Amino acid sequence: MALIVHKYGGTSMGSTERIRNVALRVAKWQRAGHQMVVVPSAMSGETNRLLALAKELAPASASSAYERELDQLAATGEQASSALLAIALQAQGLEAVSYCGWQVPIRTNSAYTKARIEAIDDARIKADLAAGRVVIITGFQGVDAGGNITTLGRGGSDTSAVAVAAAIGAHECLIYTDVDGVYTTDPRVVPEARRLARVSFEEMLEMASMGSKVLQIRSVEFAGKYRMPIRVLSSFTPWDIDLNTEAQSGTLITFEDEQTMEQAVVSGIAFNRDEAKITVLGVPDRPGIAYLILGAVAEANVEVDVIIQNISKDGKTDFSFTVHRNDYAKTLDLLRSQVVPKLGAAEVLGDARICKVSIVGIGMRSHVGVASRMFRCLSEEGINIQMISTSEIKTSVVIDEKYMELAVRALHREFDLDQPADSLKS
Amino acid sequence: MALIVHKYGGTSMGSTERIRNVALRVAKWQRAGHQMVVVPSAMSGETNRLLALAKELAPASASSAYERELDQLAATGEQASSALLAIALQAQGLEAVSYCGWQVPIRTNSAYTKARIEAIDDARIKADLAAGRVVIITGFQGVDAGGNITTLGRGGSDTSAVAVAAAIGAHECLIYTDVDGVYTTDPRVVPEARRLARVSFEEMLEMASMGSKVLQIRSVEFAGKYRMPIRVLSSFTPWDIDLNTEAQSGTLITFEDEQTMEQAVVSGIAFNRDEAKITVLGVPDRPGIAYLILGAVAEANVEVDVIIQNISKDGKTDFSFTVHRNDYAKTLDLLRSQVVPKLGAAEVLGDARICKVSIVGIGMRSHVGVASRMFRCLSEEGINIQMISTSEIKTSVVIDEKYMELAVRALHREFDLDQPADSLKS
Repeated sequence: MALIVHKYGGTSMGSTERIRNVALRVAKWQRAGHQMVVVPSAMSGETNRLLALAKELAPASASSAYERELDQLAATGEQASSALLAIALQAQGLEAVSYCGWQVPIRTNSAYTKARIEAIDDARIKADLAAGRVVIITGFQGVDAGGNITTLGRGGSDTSAVAVAAAIGAHECLIYTDVDGVYTTDPRVVPEARRLARVSFEEMLEMASMGSKVLQIRSVEFAGKYRMPIRVLSSFTPWDIDLNTEAQSGTLITFEDEQTMEQAVVSGIAFNRDEAKITVLGVPDRPGIAYLILGAVAEANVEVDVIIQNISKDGKTDFSFTVHRNDYAKTLDLLRSQVVPKLGAAEVLGDARICKVSIVGIGMRSHVGVASRMFRCLSEEGINIQMISTSEIKTSVVIDEKYMELAVRALHREFDLDQPADSLKS
Repeated sequence: MALIVHKYGGTSMGSTERIRNVALRVAKWQRAGHQMVVVPSAMSGETNRLLALAKELAPASASSAYERELDQLAATGEQASSALLAIALQAQGLEAVSYCGWQVPIRTNSAYTKARIEAIDDARIKADLAAGRVVIITGFQGVDAGGNITTLGRGGSDTSAVAVAAAIGAHECLIYTDVDGVYTTDPRVVPEARRLARVSFEEMLEMASMGSKVLQIRSVEFAGKYRMPIRVLSSFTPWDIDLNTEAQSGTLITFEDEQTMEQAVVSGIAFNRDEAKITVLGVPDRPGIAYLILGAVAEANVEVDVIIQNISKDGKTDFSFTVHRNDYAKTLDLLRSQVVPKLGAAEVLGDARICKVSIVGIGMRSHVGVASRMFRCLSEEGINIQMISTSEIKTSVVIDEKYMELAVRALHREFDLDQPADSLKS
């Protein structure tokens, strides 16, 4: 018997038929003796429907007052799905109660449409659990100090579930979704890609931020901060499969465990082709240059990913960075019209036909030569590396986008990621 | 400049196009210098859509826990429409903020699906009004002492609007609806029926309870208790008609005013054919008989309307009452199987083919002979009266339902209700 949190996405809650299946699954866990808290998303399509209505009526320019109303509006989606799930559980003969964010309460700051959770009161949840009830808590939303409804942004229900699990000291937070776990890389690119039985918070963060969009990245940060194990598993398995089988399925995202995790050097290959590269050539090498260039870019609300400054030569240096492709033209313009004249730089070059490929693994911390093994592998495939960026558990390269699949497949093989699970972790 | 509450029904809020028209109308009032509070219903169809989803999932038997979830669910309809209206007002360049019942808060008891308002905190509303904002408050809902969402039952948004108006000391509560006011009787029965410019709370109560379903009866009770004038007016007039014309349109439901109200003896003719008559013959005339009969009926949750006990003869009396037709068969059964044997009554007779016709008017208080004028009129039409029931401002008769239209038309003429307005009230 344990305290368990289940989170169900919009697809799992998409119809009364599916909500009934969620209820049957939760009832199975409850009847096996677990204390259950469930965090559902809105029925699929509902949030979009509501926001489309808002868009039809929206004022010309956004404001905090407008965003407040968007949150008041969007929060109804989870309120409705949560009540429906409570009703479906009652129909299964269980006691069940649903709460909105403000009823728990889940306290957030006042950043409407992208609020951050600050505190969760566990008293009401604990009292209901003690009374044998299944507790359903709306995902995606909270309440600020002024009693205004806030939402956490798209995918925020994952974060809600993990935060609630941490607040009540749950044994595990199970996230039921439309994939059956976290893979060594995207199976559409590498058919041999393997589901990981376990992965660390840190690795998951590096993978999530690279486009393996299984979980909202903030939920993983939260889980890591509070050491709350998350299990990503499929909501498409029949509700009546054996509970122990279900409880071991998917991928467990958890804290690093020396015994089980040290074998694998690299856990996965992440990649994305959403970026573009910009290089400022012939920049005078003096203090404040990086700020002069990137300050202007940040002011234009452009997010910068990889940043490289080459060594200086004759008092001049080359400065490169990547931005999202959507911001590429705007950033080039900005640099050419405002920054280059001020800097006295020689030229600004850009290339939107690039991609970033990364190897991610906790094992890189203690294994030397992992990066060079990556570079050798790519060179053997004749792939030229344009930029390199490293962190403790990740090495990323920027290459020509036409080589992306080739690079990912070669690296997946190089680091034995297509081998059966028992030769790797878990 | 005055403090004004507008209430808009589901039809008025039925699409983004209509919500925009509501915003334009409210903006007109605000720009004319009024302080505006708006209470909207859910978009038409939304509450039914939500409750239909609940019904698909509902447990076999209802419970308080189930009804709690129904309220949690249904309350989202008004939350969404209120946020959308706030957004539409912002698009008109006004400052606007929407609040759910719990955010005001509107405190109610815990009777889920049919809660009663106990208190309304005006602090937040007043602060926003003082800051020049339009305040939008969800109709139909409140919050109980335990922080659970409650709803007021169908039509509850009228009550919300009147209660909010009373709490903030509004000048008038304008209820925009799909009729243009209160009529002397149903125009479908009497084409000459006239819109009343003014009617008293008491008269409106008697008419509302008789099926002139313009307003939820509890909203009129509330208005009478707090002496809050209500104006019922059409939401179909273009939003850009002259504000003063609009402000004088419809029917004002207000407290009795000696100057304007004393002329009319009868204000309207109400009727309904939803009832059935039951008579218990040959009841021993001893104390406790009424309780023995009606106690059993009340325990079966059957509501009784007109009750008549004839004078005793030879120690026996006849006891008649009316119930809703839906309860007719059940009540007959109950009396025959349980009550008659206990009472030693002779027989139970029933008739479902009846109707009730009432004349309503404050003037009846001070005018003698109004009831007998009604009876004479009916007798001249050859209509037999089966039961009579009177109150201070109403006289009702039960007659054969086939005479209903005839009776209503005859009485409408008898009391000069088809005469132009200036010969009557206002």
